[in-house]
Amino acid sequence: MENFVFYSPTEFVFGRDTQVQTGPLVKRYGGTTVLLVSGGGSVERSGLLGQVRESLSQSGIKYVEQKGIAPNPTDDRVYEGIDLARDHGVDFVLAVGGGSVIDSAKAVAIGVPYAGDFWDFYCGKAQPERALPVGVVLTIPAAGSEGSGNSVITKLDGKHKISVRYPMILRPRFAVMNPELTMSLPWFQTACGVADMLCHIYERYFSNTPATDLTDSIAEAIMRDVMDNALTLKEMPDDYDARASIMWASTLAHNGLCGTGKQEDWSSHRLEHEISAWYNVAHGAGLAVMTPAWMQYVAERNPGKVMQFAVNVMGISPDGKTEAEVCRLGIESLRGFYHTLGLTTSLRELIGGEPDLDLLTESLRGNMGDTLGFYVPLSMADCRKIYEAAL
Amino acid sequence: MENFVFYSPTEFVFGRDTQVQTGPLVKRYGGTTVLLVSGGGSVERSGLLGQVRESLSQSGIKYVEQKGIAPNPTDDRVYEGIDLARDHGVDFVLAVGGGSVIDSAKAVAIGVPYAGDFWDFYCGKAQPERALPVGVVLTIPAAGSEGSGNSVITKLDGKHKISVRYPMILRPRFAVMNPELTMSLPWFQTACGVADMLCHIYERYFSNTPATDLTDSIAEAIMRDVMDNALTLKEMPDDYDARASIMWASTLAHNGLCGTGKQEDWSSHRLEHEISAWYNVAHGAGLAVMTPAWMQYVAERNPGKVMQFAVNVMGISPDGKTEAEVCRLGIESLRGFYHTLGLTTSLRELIGGEPDLDLLTESLRGNMGDTLGFYVPLSMADCRKIYEAAL
Repeated sequence: MENFVFYSPTEFVFGRDTQVQTGPLVKRYGGTTVLLVSGGGSVERSGLLGQVRESLSQSGIKYVEQKGIAPNPTDDRVYEGIDLARDHGVDFVLAVGGGSVIDSAKAVAIGVPYAGDFWDFYCGKAQPERALPVGVVLTIPAAGSEGSGNSVITKLDGKHKISVRYPMILRPRFAVMNPELTMSLPWFQTACGVADMLCHIYERYFSNTPATDLTDSIAEAIMRDVMDNALTLKEMPDDYDARASIMWASTLAHNGLCGTGKQEDWSSHRLEHEISAWYNVAHGAGLAVMTPAWMQYVAERNPGKVMQFAVNVMGISPDGKTEAEVCRLGIESLRGFYHTLGLTTSLRELIGGEPDLDLLTESLRGNMGDTLGFYVPLSMADCRKIYEAAL
Repeated sequence: MENFVFYSPTEFVFGRDTQVQTGPLVKRYGGTTVLLVSGGGSVERSGLLGQVRESLSQSGIKYVEQKGIAPNPTDDRVYEGIDLARDHGVDFVLAVGGGSVIDSAKAVAIGVPYAGDFWDFYCGKAQPERALPVGVVLTIPAAGSEGSGNSVITKLDGKHKISVRYPMILRPRFAVMNPELTMSLPWFQTACGVADMLCHIYERYFSNTPATDLTDSIAEAIMRDVMDNALTLKEMPDDYDARASIMWASTLAHNGLCGTGKQEDWSSHRLEHEISAWYNVAHGAGLAVMTPAWMQYVAERNPGKVMQFAVNVMGISPDGKTEAEVCRLGIESLRGFYHTLGLTTSLRELIGGEPDLDLLTESLRGNMGDTLGFYVPLSMADCRKIYEAAL
């Protein structure tokens, strides 16, 4: 086991009707003037935004709104949010939505107190020293951004989709999580969320660090539970308890618990980020394509953990089978799981055409350098082969 | 699943040599003058206290020391600590030790800013509004106090051993956790710690709340891992990775993770607190006696979760067996596990004589009222029968 820091200071307020606690929570964490960031019209139509506004007003909190943050959030909206926050003397950023809204809100939160360009923190030119406090009312369980110090922003000029991690200052102060709010999600978004949270666990699970049995067995328990409950939801999308399990799992998948004591990998995410940046597909849908392709490629070079995943998570019996067969059956079963959820595992099908693999690989090299990951360190030639295997 | 709040804000700094980070951590969390609380002479002899003092001094932090906090910490030392802290203008309390030292430090931390008697917070006369910040250098993995908002103090006058939980203000700011520091523990203390952390999970696991499969499967994974690694340590007490797993598990057992969405029970702890208060035995040793006796009593009235424990944690195959048999075999296997660790499961053997069951039951009634717990609500007559079954 490696040395680690586990720091998950967010107060998670979980369950039915918890959105009415938003105002008091903002107040408790020192907010007086809020930038209220949201995404599509569904949070308005469902009445959620109205409930949040009312809760803020009842707590005597002023707010200014930034609406319409789209999936794969872009730098232009961040600049806009920073200006808005400065103009109105905002001291707290409240995100009502899923990962894209939260990530955009976090970028605003580190941008406001910084004299330079916020993109400095994403391109590695500067490290943020402070941020406005961020709170979350979560509507899509997927990204885990409600409990993480991460933010992913895409620069429109050049299609750089960059993920940063500043855990000491960017973890939200609180996250209100009501599973009922997720029942009206289109099925595709639920399925993409499941693929995303599972991948947050894979990135930590697939590791060569020895003697991580405690972290591994927690990760395996969460992965099995997510898959079980996703299949329940496919049949019964209004099942509260399955919604609740999936929602809480999305947080645990990404708050650091599943990575304690381990070297993390993050290749699949980086391979996928190019796809959603260039072809504007849903991140989770991209991961359902890239993770089995990545797993298959690394299993041929370092089968140990893929075998463990196949047996302990996918339920493949190893009796009388070679290691390669167990890995193959586990990955096949994972692809079958994604197909049952209605997700494709083919890159061509995902983007509806022929992807430009040179473009993807060169863009990846531009963002990430010459190698990727640790479980099996990948050259850019390896990455291109994984894109090919995903076709 | 029930609504819940999960709030575990402590920064856990885990691994080899992490104690040298103590000074910078105190500084980061705003401490300038520290009350340095410790227990027996072993932390002095091992050089740990010296390293901590040096780290504080290097960070320019002043300190005053309170030494010799004994197991089952008592109110007299808390009063002493409060006076010492006030006399020296202390603004941060640092505990170097195990649960008893941390719990005493926490009591001082809520006592210092309070004009009344700190015991008001333990006997239910008042609720603390604030506390001095607390930091921890952990030497005994057991109580989970390094990540919890709990504190257990015994009032010398009358033997009231009372546990309180003030999660919003009493969770330590940081906990330095170096598994190497636990290698020199006497085996008995390691074994007692294992019994304690397991019981922190039982108290949450044994619950009638429906649809808590995610929380349950995480709890089962941790319990299995603790038992596996405890058996490894019995043979190889210097195994770093087993020490590390046990140490991290002790935190996860009690930081709230294993109770998310569930009604918790806490009967076994309350039954045991009377024993360690009146007979001054180690808390973990008392739990190894009381938990199987409690489990056996409740299994006859509400077998569901005991059966699940027997199968999923103790590895009992349910094939061709009655529910009662599976429960019995699971509890037998748990007793066998404690015996392998060198712990007794007999109350007489534990205290080396005949316990006064009337005294224990009446004292329990005085501290807790007429009923105990939720998995099977216990009358005081039930509690007496459980003490009898534990003899």
